[in-house]
Amino acid sequence: MILLLGASGYIGEAFAKELQRRKTSFMSLSRKETDYTNFEKLLDFLDSYEPEFVINAAGYTGKPNVDACELDKAGTLVGNTLLPQTIAHACAAAGIPWGHVSSGCIYSGAKISENEKVRVENDMTKPELHVLAENKSAAILGYNEIDAPNFSFRDQPCSFYSGTKALSEEAIAGIGQSYVWRLRIPFDEFDNKRNYLSKVQRYAKVYENVNSISHRADFVKACLDTWELRAPFGIYNVTNPGYVTTRHVVEQIEKYLKPARKFEFWKNDEEFYRQAAKTPRSNCVMDVSKLLAAGVKIRGVEAALEDSLINWKPE
Amino acid sequence: MILLLGASGYIGEAFAKELQRRKTSFMSLSRKETDYTNFEKLLDFLDSYEPEFVINAAGYTGKPNVDACELDKAGTLVGNTLLPQTIAHACAAAGIPWGHVSSGCIYSGAKISENEKVRVENDMTKPELHVLAENKSAAILGYNEIDAPNFSFRDQPCSFYSGTKALSEEAIAGIGQSYVWRLRIPFDEFDNKRNYLSKVQRYAKVYENVNSISHRADFVKACLDTWELRAPFGIYNVTNPGYVTTRHVVEQIEKYLKPARKFEFWKNDEEFYRQAAKTPRSNCVMDVSKLLAAGVKIRGVEAALEDSLINWKPE
Repeated sequence: MILLLGASGYIGEAFAKELQRRKTSFMSLSRKETDYTNFEKLLDFLDSYEPEFVINAAGYTGKPNVDACELDKAGTLVGNTLLPQTIAHACAAAGIPWGHVSSGCIYSGAKISENEKVRVENDMTKPELHVLAENKSAAILGYNEIDAPNFSFRDQPCSFYSGTKALSEEAIAGIGQSYVWRLRIPFDEFDNKRNYLSKVQRYAKVYENVNSISHRADFVKACLDTWELRAPFGIYNVTNPGYVTTRHVVEQIEKYLKPARKFEFWKNDEEFYRQAAKTPRSNCVMDVSKLLAAGVKIRGVEAALEDSLINWKPE
Repeated sequence: MILLLGASGYIGEAFAKELQRRKTSFMSLSRKETDYTNFEKLLDFLDSYEPEFVINAAGYTGKPNVDACELDKAGTLVGNTLLPQTIAHACAAAGIPWGHVSSGCIYSGAKISENEKVRVENDMTKPELHVLAENKSAAILGYNEIDAPNFSFRDQPCSFYSGTKALSEEAIAGIGQSYVWRLRIPFDEFDNKRNYLSKVQRYAKVYENVNSISHRADFVKACLDTWELRAPFGIYNVTNPGYVTTRHVVEQIEKYLKPARKFEFWKNDEEFYRQAAKTPRSNCVMDVSKLLAAGVKIRGVEAALEDSLINWKPE
């Protein structure tokens, strides 16, 4: 039996759906039933029910966006750093392997293949990455699991949200047996305020940048596959291979959904941060070679994007 | 046997000295020998050595002052929040009671006895508390252990340091058996850059405010007494009863140490924060009734202050 924490969240509900589809026995736990944020209560639960694996899909993302995390630092730390550490400790004490939904938002920019050490910024005022991305250059390399986060409390500036996510990876490293699955900008065919494709359609103006992104069902399938395949424990970037520019996403939305509105873009970073955002945003390209090398199959970002728009289900 | 963590720090070394004086068997652990920040390593150690009690005197204070914590958010969180949570979990799993050195700096200001709900700010531009303090008014009440912190991530503004200390109290609440000992501005007769009396003498200008303060040896004695007396587990404010104004501390320094220099004060909060400090400072009055009611004896702040100055040992 698998224990699923955070089953009512945007990613948690996708885990529940996929576990049902696979006919994998699982139970979800709400904080109201058992306060799993309390180490002793969680450990008691693990010792009683002996799940074979634990999934942590709980976290604090901030509503309507990460700016809210700047105002609720305690809630952000409790949900994104202290809770994962608690689960790591309880699972280690109970001898149970587990997986944690982390985030790729602990990086900013990308690397260039001619010199992997040159990191390029994802900033409209520094268009190098955007020019390469528009030409689908093979020179763009994503961050891999060995690269130290460069959008974190140890490499500022960062958003408070990203800081707490990066710190959770440190807090659970070297304890017990865990997968750290890095999600990055979830999207799929179901219109939802957490869905990237819905957000792009609802923004007053669109912010142009380059990102790897994760189809929600593809993400949870890949995560579960790391466990089913008994891939080595550790960190895995879990996005659809490749990257997209926001401009391309808008073009695909226009092509498939034919919205009445015209899309406008922020002129530059300065205008975006002055008018639309309080805390810096992470935009980055991820390298999923490690995931693929572990034998996990996940379709490319272009196929996942088109499929989502072809099967689009308005709310 | 007692296990002492952080024995090389300013408070840790006072614990070691007092345990030696009491001929209480103890061992200290450095991170180099055993990385006690790792849950599994700490739990293994506890299971092997079975200490009867654990003291955590480790923490991250920022050098030369709390402004440094704003620049090292990861280090501050790891030292002041994640470590205490790790110790709480390991002690709970091993069934060992423990004590944590917390801080009174999670409060700001004081309360007025005529209406306990009226909190007064400790701000030179709002002199109510200062006027009462100079007249040694009985109306000044300190914060007790039931009062919610009002200088924390949940009640901003606060310094990053104070935020992490307040959060540590939440992170360890309701787990196992623990004492939370709140220290507040340590001082004693030994000239040291961490000693409040040394700091006051070395500041270019002095910042006038009202504070409860903790004589270092008195503090560790009181902490150890809560355990020796088997006081109920929980939070205890551990300062010398009473409060001092900085102006009074300066007068006592002038009276006993007769320094050559003349002391100057910052004109107001605005000048202090513009020229001498980056992040807000906590200045507050603490209520130690709970500690005294538990049977712990600790001399009043005036006696501790005079004694320190009479026995002053320059560095």
